[in-house]
Amino acid sequence: MAEENEMVVTPWEVSGEIDYDRLIEKFGTEPITDPLLERIKKFTGELHLQLRRRIFFSHRDLDLILDMYEAGRKFVLYTGRGPSGPVHIGHIVPWIFTKYLQDKFDAKLYFQMTDDEKFLIHPEFTLRKAVDWTYDNALDVAAIGFDPKKTFIISDVNNIKILYSLAVKIARHITVSTVKAVFGFEDSSNIGIVFFPALQAAPCFIESMATGEKVPCLIPAAIDQDPYWRIARDVAPKLEYYKPAQIHCKFIPGLGKGGKMSASMPETCIFMTDPPEVAERKIWNAFTGGKPTAREQRIEGGDPTICTIFQYFSLLFEEDDKALSELSSKCRSGEILCGDCKEKLSERVKRFLTEHQRRREKARNIIDQYFIDDRVPSRI
Amino acid sequence: MAEENEMVVTPWEVSGEIDYDRLIEKFGTEPITDPLLERIKKFTGELHLQLRRRIFFSHRDLDLILDMYEAGRKFVLYTGRGPSGPVHIGHIVPWIFTKYLQDKFDAKLYFQMTDDEKFLIHPEFTLRKAVDWTYDNALDVAAIGFDPKKTFIISDVNNIKILYSLAVKIARHITVSTVKAVFGFEDSSNIGIVFFPALQAAPCFIESMATGEKVPCLIPAAIDQDPYWRIARDVAPKLEYYKPAQIHCKFIPGLGKGGKMSASMPETCIFMTDPPEVAERKIWNAFTGGKPTAREQRIEGGDPTICTIFQYFSLLFEEDDKALSELSSKCRSGEILCGDCKEKLSERVKRFLTEHQRRREKARNIIDQYFIDDRVPSRI
Repeated sequence: MAEENEMVVTPWEVSGEIDYDRLIEKFGTEPITDPLLERIKKFTGELHLQLRRRIFFSHRDLDLILDMYEAGRKFVLYTGRGPSGPVHIGHIVPWIFTKYLQDKFDAKLYFQMTDDEKFLIHPEFTLRKAVDWTYDNALDVAAIGFDPKKTFIISDVNNIKILYSLAVKIARHITVSTVKAVFGFEDSSNIGIVFFPALQAAPCFIESMATGEKVPCLIPAAIDQDPYWRIARDVAPKLEYYKPAQIHCKFIPGLGKGGKMSASMPETCIFMTDPPEVAERKIWNAFTGGKPTAREQRIEGGDPTICTIFQYFSLLFEEDDKALSELSSKCRSGEILCGDCKEKLSERVKRFLTEHQRRREKARNIIDQYFIDDRVPSRI
Repeated sequence: MAEENEMVVTPWEVSGEIDYDRLIEKFGTEPITDPLLERIKKFTGELHLQLRRRIFFSHRDLDLILDMYEAGRKFVLYTGRGPSGPVHIGHIVPWIFTKYLQDKFDAKLYFQMTDDEKFLIHPEFTLRKAVDWTYDNALDVAAIGFDPKKTFIISDVNNIKILYSLAVKIARHITVSTVKAVFGFEDSSNIGIVFFPALQAAPCFIESMATGEKVPCLIPAAIDQDPYWRIARDVAPKLEYYKPAQIHCKFIPGLGKGGKMSASMPETCIFMTDPPEVAERKIWNAFTGGKPTAREQRIEGGDPTICTIFQYFSLLFEEDDKALSELSSKCRSGEILCGDCKEKLSERVKRFLTEHQRRREKARNIIDQYFIDDRVPSRI
């Protein structure tokens, strides 16, 4: 067992105080530096707030991706989701960034729904249930506004044909020892989940397989998924593909005190399908950096660095850096109270959810266009 | 290492002196008894020579299959092949018996080509090569004369969509410990081959999955494959399917002294694509129960029990029990010499190969009809 507050970051557990500088060191990734941001800006014209505010804070080989892009080589994007329940704001923050990358770099996106994995690790799940969540969650992906012509959602279960030949090529290079060491599997683990890392690595190489050319791949994802890509990176040269590059985001907090947003704590979690008034209630119950009484707060000020409301402005709901900075100052000086911020955030979240839900419903008519099916030819 | 002549029977190795009674005991299967043969005859009208001569000698739950058949319940057949090279006579002997079962019981046949497995265990194989062998070997399956309307060949790689949802359901119930114990896998094994037993079990349940009803399945195969079906039998009740029944055949000998027919010893192996004169040469070089000189043999007689030529008459090339028995007597008495038998067998084998090769070429036009593709709906 980990000590209380000890930092634990694995694909299945994120807990303790997260020290992102230490994570970069521990995982052996590279920080996103100002010069790198300047380079990105050269291609994108503007820096997404998730870059400006270092929500995406770390990478592997992003510089190589930019080198190749500069030399005229396109890359593909790959991200995904374990569909075990409804999508919440914590999930879509990196998807919004991924759409920015798709738009700015005119990139194809492979989006993997690991319904097989969810079935394999949840004894109470039926396979039907996992696949149903795939189709439910795909509506949220579509609602983000990805280009359906350039976006390929993959249900592991239903689109296995696209993945399997790549997965066996990958699997031949991965031993049981390796997945035990990397993922903590044991002899008591089931043989499906032991094979699964090969399937999660496969989409990195779909474009290369389909075109017969080496196509670079960039993965925007939370840093806890890094172990999967380390394996994909080890195997890539053996299959004569590029190592997948990555850009890592921080964990998106819930509305409670500490911890990433998690569907297992629904009261601290804004689901994309929450009725706006439910989201509002959750926001009014959120943990803030405020003082016990309004009087104290007016005198002493609040602490935006620990405030979940402030974090949500920063992550998604206040695009204007100047306005965000003013909000921080006014909080610290006691000029505004938590109620003011909650009211403002509620309004924006409600508007955001209403719009998302409208797009989500509209997506039902075109969702099939997003699934990969056999649009990508399978070459073995 | 096994001692010389120690009996070793695993899916990957068959060596030593095979004692089939001991195998029945060791594997915990049931012998095929006279009363069981009588029961089969009630349904089939005649007993196939491979039953009369106990080439198929052991079973699990064949009695239950017959009980259900008697009560009006159809069963499906399932067998398969690891496509790592050309098909030889040792492979097709049980296929010929499987066709008899298909004809007599009007049964669907699922025929799995484990091209993924061959790729996963042969580092020098490309996936392309393994799948090419699938299509090559499928021609031999078709040439046996299986009913294309009731026969569903499955390439694991190309038809994975049919298998994968079943495979993950199976895999969730199989631990790494189990496959280590049953198949001798180790931590140094690759994660693809560790998952593979779930895929080999899957076809047992395709018919049940596709129809939504519990359909019994009978597997005719050599007894070395038994470990796979033990796992399938363990898992079946957890998925609310019937345990697959089995009928086991002996190992088909090569033309050399001892050992099963193996493509790794091509000179003792009659391939279905061998030019008839090549097969003839191999037969002339075969190990027999004859004496060093014709003179000695005329006096002392030969020993048909150790003679590969005699075994081939028994397995396939002498349907008439009386004629076979006479052949044995005449050999023992020295009345006929090895040359006589070799000549007779050569003629029959050449005729057999010519006919097979003709059907094999004809099969090219209709081979696609044999592949399962999406003819069987996938219900998850």
